[in-house]
Amino acid sequence: MPKKKIAIIGATGYTGSELVRILTHHPEADISLITSESRAGERFSDVHPFFQGIADQKLHKAEAVKDHDIDLAFLALPHGVSMKYVEQFANQNFKIVDLSGDFRLPDPETYESWYNKDHTYREGFAKAVYGLPELNAEKIKTAELVANPGCYPTSALLGLAPLVNGKLIDPASIVVDSKSGVTGAGVKAKAVNHFSTVNDNFKAYGLKKHRHTIEIQTTLAGVFAAKPIVQFTPHLLPLDRGILSTIYAKPAKDVSEELLMAAYGTFYGNAPFVRLRKQGPTLKDVRGTNYCDIYCTFDERTRNIIVISVIDNLVKGAAGQAVQNMNLMFGMEEDLGLRQIPLAP
Amino acid sequence: MPKKKIAIIGATGYTGSELVRILTHHPEADISLITSESRAGERFSDVHPFFQGIADQKLHKAEAVKDHDIDLAFLALPHGVSMKYVEQFANQNFKIVDLSGDFRLPDPETYESWYNKDHTYREGFAKAVYGLPELNAEKIKTAELVANPGCYPTSALLGLAPLVNGKLIDPASIVVDSKSGVTGAGVKAKAVNHFSTVNDNFKAYGLKKHRHTIEIQTTLAGVFAAKPIVQFTPHLLPLDRGILSTIYAKPAKDVSEELLMAAYGTFYGNAPFVRLRKQGPTLKDVRGTNYCDIYCTFDERTRNIIVISVIDNLVKGAAGQAVQNMNLMFGMEEDLGLRQIPLAP
Amino acid sequence: MPKKKIAIIGATGYTGSELVRILTHHPEADISLITSESRAGERFSDVHPFFQGIADQKLHKAEAVKDHDIDLAFLALPHGVSMKYVEQFANQNFKIVDLSGDFRLPDPETYESWYNKDHTYREGFAKAVYGLPELNAEKIKTAELVANPGCYPTSALLGLAPLVNGKLIDPASIVVDSKSGVTGAGVKAKAVNHFSTVNDNFKAYGLKKHRHTIEIQTTLAGVFAAKPIVQFTPHLLPLDRGILSTIYAKPAKDVSEELLMAAYGTFYGNAPFVRLRKQGPTLKDVRGTNYCDIYCTFDERTRNIIVISVIDNLVKGAAGQAVQNMNLMFGMEEDLGLRQIPLAP
Amino acid sequence: MPKKKIAIIGATGYTGSELVRILTHHPEADISLITSESRAGERFSDVHPFFQGIADQKLHKAEAVKDHDIDLAFLALPHGVSMKYVEQFANQNFKIVDLSGDFRLPDPETYESWYNKDHTYREGFAKAVYGLPELNAEKIKTAELVANPGCYPTSALLGLAPLVNGKLIDPASIVVDSKSGVTGAGVKAKAVNHFSTVNDNFKAYGLKKHRHTIEIQTTLAGVFAAKPIVQFTPHLLPLDRGILSTIYAKPAKDVSEELLMAAYGTFYGNAPFVRLRKQGPTLKDVRGTNYCDIYCTFDERTRNIIVISVIDNLVKGAAGQAVQNMNLMFGMEEDLGLRQIPLAP
Repeated sequence: MPKKKIAIIGATGYTGSELVRILTHHPEADISLITSESRAGERFSDVHPFFQGIADQKLHKAEAVKDHDIDLAFLALPHGVSMKYVEQFANQNFKIVDLSGDFRLPDPETYESWYNKDHTYREGFAKAVYGLPELNAEKIKTAELVANPGCYPTSALLGLAPLVNGKLIDPASIVVDSKSGVTGAGVKAKAVNHFSTVNDNFKAYGLKKHRHTIEIQTTLAGVFAAKPIVQFTPHLLPLDRGILSTIYAKPAKDVSEELLMAAYGTFYGNAPFVRLRKQGPTLKDVRGTNYCDIYCTFDERTRNIIVISVIDNLVKGAAGQAVQNMNLMFGMEEDLGLRQIPLAP
Repeated sequence: MPKKKIAIIGATGYTGSELVRILTHHPEADISLITSESRAGERFSDVHPFFQGIADQKLHKAEAVKDHDIDLAFLALPHGVSMKYVEQFANQNFKIVDLSGDFRLPDPETYESWYNKDHTYREGFAKAVYGLPELNAEKIKTAELVANPGCYPTSALLGLAPLVNGKLIDPASIVVDSKSGVTGAGVKAKAVNHFSTVNDNFKAYGLKKHRHTIEIQTTLAGVFAAKPIVQFTPHLLPLDRGILSTIYAKPAKDVSEELLMAAYGTFYGNAPFVRLRKQGPTLKDVRGTNYCDIYCTFDERTRNIIVISVIDNLVKGAAGQAVQNMNLMFGMEEDLGLRQIPLAP
Repeated sequence: MPKKKIAIIGATGYTGSELVRILTHHPEADISLITSESRAGERFSDVHPFFQGIADQKLHKAEAVKDHDIDLAFLALPHGVSMKYVEQFANQNFKIVDLSGDFRLPDPETYESWYNKDHTYREGFAKAVYGLPELNAEKIKTAELVANPGCYPTSALLGLAPLVNGKLIDPASIVVDSKSGVTGAGVKAKAVNHFSTVNDNFKAYGLKKHRHTIEIQTTLAGVFAAKPIVQFTPHLLPLDRGILSTIYAKPAKDVSEELLMAAYGTFYGNAPFVRLRKQGPTLKDVRGTNYCDIYCTFDERTRNIIVISVIDNLVKGAAGQAVQNMNLMFGMEEDLGLRQIPLAP
Repeated sequence: MPKKKIAIIGATGYTGSELVRILTHHPEADISLITSESRAGERFSDVHPFFQGIADQKLHKAEAVKDHDIDLAFLALPHGVSMKYVEQFANQNFKIVDLSGDFRLPDPETYESWYNKDHTYREGFAKAVYGLPELNAEKIKTAELVANPGCYPTSALLGLAPLVNGKLIDPASIVVDSKSGVTGAGVKAKAVNHFSTVNDNFKAYGLKKHRHTIEIQTTLAGVFAAKPIVQFTPHLLPLDRGILSTIYAKPAKDVSEELLMAAYGTFYGNAPFVRLRKQGPTLKDVRGTNYCDIYCTFDERTRNIIVISVIDNLVKGAAGQAVQNMNLMFGMEEDLGLRQIPLAP
């Protein structure tokens, strides 16, 4: 069987670069096209010099997809921009994995309310499938448009899913206190990601209104028919990669650490990228990989369930998960090309 | 009036070093004696070379306090060791500020249960005053033995006090999710503070059983006659100094951000080191200083109160607060010698 | 005697902020005016929130100097901009310390050749004095315009001065391999100072043509009548503050480590901010202070002299040195207001 | 052909862990045995939890090599310990790649003089081949014992080899100013690698007498029949992985940047891991990979040649190079299993 022909739309950001890192060694996929509107004509390794000798192909404008007989396109674009390409590619004969936030929410009204932005391709919502494979694999396999989850929601949802699925927690009691590395905010230089603003520093941000709040909440509602209320507080860590979410919830019934971990074991079964841990994981345990490591415990004294969940925000939180979705969409093994080992230290 | 004669018992750790940094320029205190059992005979600047030319005095054994007509001794020692010196100094004619955890809890039974260690000077509890000046100034002024608060409890208690005092929250709903720099774990080299274990990394630790949990809970109970249940989760940040606590609680009545901040304003009044902020503070906002910066908000959607509180764990969380206590104990201005400006970046 | 009235022209950068940090507690200086063309009307603490409660004064436009009876103005401005203010203030009745590179070189031709920029106030060079107090104190005391040295040159020149002065090295053999924290590149967000570009990373930059090369070389030539050839290579460290220069030179005569350190001792005498060290210093040994710590040795095997010199680039490399110059210009004690102790760790 | 059976002697350090990371996906090698004297009986993933689900095999004592029909053993042990195993394994029927410093120098006398330690297996020097494939591939192919190069020497020698080989520089003029991440100092917790000692800090160390000095010098002498004098100064960077060497030397003839880069191009030809760069590389350009990126220039003004060379000290500076040597020793493709892509950021 010939390899699948892949286009990466948007090459200058971190997720574009990670897609190339992963797909370069994928045994069943070929990168046929990488595009950048701003850097077309240059080489990919001109934009990301560490790819010299590895990925030196020329960048094209996105319109070049027409000439490349593509099987699947990854959109590694900002939200608001991505929807335009999804619309433009609607009648093309290839699948799409959209890494932006444009089609993750259940409907355009919710999108417009939380993103403060008009949605210009409202028809897209009908065909978009939320691409969290551990929750949604069957739908992903037949999807033409996959909305790749946000980084924070990936870490929160994988930590919460077995608890909500098993009706083990009061869904109105969820607090997700997340801490992310800086790459989550993108490659563009801004005052907030200046080295000396971030280094040796730490802060909370986006209190009460971060867009990933509603993505976590509506996904739990949609997949598990629950009525969750999610308090989500992101924080900015002085490091590059990784999200750790500390999740608190009230039990809905009598629980113990053993019962809880058993629920996780049953729910995730042979999922290749979820590792259940016997103690709290660290960010470096998953760096550069598609793993999500999870630890769950119960505090008898306070009657709180506590979950710790870690991912690499650029891999399981973006490019790796996108390739995992691609594998499912093509009927390949779910972890093909994704067996990287953590780079630690 | 002659300057007060100060002894610093324990010179090799970070708090000993910070005490010297602060007291060197204190206008009403003289460092008469610095002790170290392991490095006696060497100079202070042999142990901390960055003090060359600033603090080159010889280190003595602690027994030398007898010869120095001391007015006050700071104990910058590990818990378990400190209690022995408090006992030994009981009949000496000087005041003590103990920076260890040995006398922070209300009674030896609670201590022994959370510290897994016998307490060998149980009489000490009767005279020990919990040294959080913003809550306890009157008692501190006349104390002979002040138990200087833990770093995490300082950040949590200053964030919670106005809410508990005003009965604005359900005291059984408190979640304190704290993140600390590495100096909080002390100067001794261990696998957990190896640079490559911590750098570019992040983890939760001490879930459910960290000793500062009970310090926060019993202090709230003691000062405000509340019955709190505190869920406390510490995390380790890849940076040197600073604690940020993100605190969640359920309101006990109708509240708004305005009402909440007004409660903070009333409670702290002219407290020289609490700064109420209009948005979330960062760790560097207080680095090297005795400030505690606090922001509080209310999420209408989820009905949660959220507080962000930051301190420098070595200053307001240790040595600075100890000097603030000393100032009160001597009837001096509370912020004397403590007007350092944040070192940022 | 009334305190001196000080203006700080340019408030948004790191050096402006450091000037306020230092001058706030200077016993003989008052900050009468802080200016910013872009943020005039806002408070200083709006720009630098960590100054809340410490420096809340309003920012003005620079033209406000006319109304404030200023004794001395610090120009904390980019090169190219600073020269315009020096010209504009030429007939005003106050002294100037210019922290930019506009008047550090001996003549406008050299400036234009290395800065690739026309110099629009060539008359300024005649009155400008190079403000490195350890080399130039007598001239600084009577200067009306002091050109505050660059950060790298401060570290290199203090490391080299005793060797060049004592004709101990071949001035054509100098290699200065310097490593700087990120604040040296300024507060403006750029791709090169994005956190994820710098963190866990390291690089050399500006090979062969960095402007500080010629500042080092012409200063050595001017002060010591030497004919140096300086190879200067700057590198970017993943940290905020500090420069360490490793300097290599060939001896011009028989030397030993003892003889070399004796030359440093004689040259620096009672200089309050140079600390001669018995082993290599680290950046944190001087963080937040005006110290320059120096270690020098001789390798018998290779016949190379090696010097290690460290400073805080924002203090001895900028704002602290500027205040040291101010003290000299006003006939005050050289270290007044500058006795900060290193913040370590 | 069956896969080669590999033993890794020494599992607890960084190089042991990196060997497992690389060999796990090597298509022609199987890890048959991992040993640790101190942790035998535990699983590899107990020691390195991030390997959970990837490498869970039991650790054995080294004596177990007898039972495993090994083809090649990697010794990931400290110097001084390694020589004992090389001796003990001398009559075993497998090849050895020793990652310690015990057999890198030309003779035991030089070893004893620079390592301050007796060498107890002096016969080993006769059969040891210095394992820098870009210089020594032919000898490595038939070697039974390969001494894997030190991390600093790898970066220095690859930067210098074309210049020394082409007699382009005066070999007595070499200055190697190197900067390394912390993993180079090993996994054992010590005061010098405490997070707060290293973070936001930088220093030179080992001036004049670091053991890698003589490894660089004797290798240049041995391979190129040159008489080099090498000044080598290592520095400690606040980051995990990577060495950048800035190398200065005087030209021995008329040179230009073009001529120099052409010499590099000729010398390295199709070497799979040397990338010649058009501007200075950064550490992250090679993180997690076996690449050595090199840039060379000539300063007409000063008549100095400057070379910048970067590697990942744990990969090309240790485990990756060891596997590269293994590939050569088994007649496999040199880069088999070593095509990792840099993890950036």
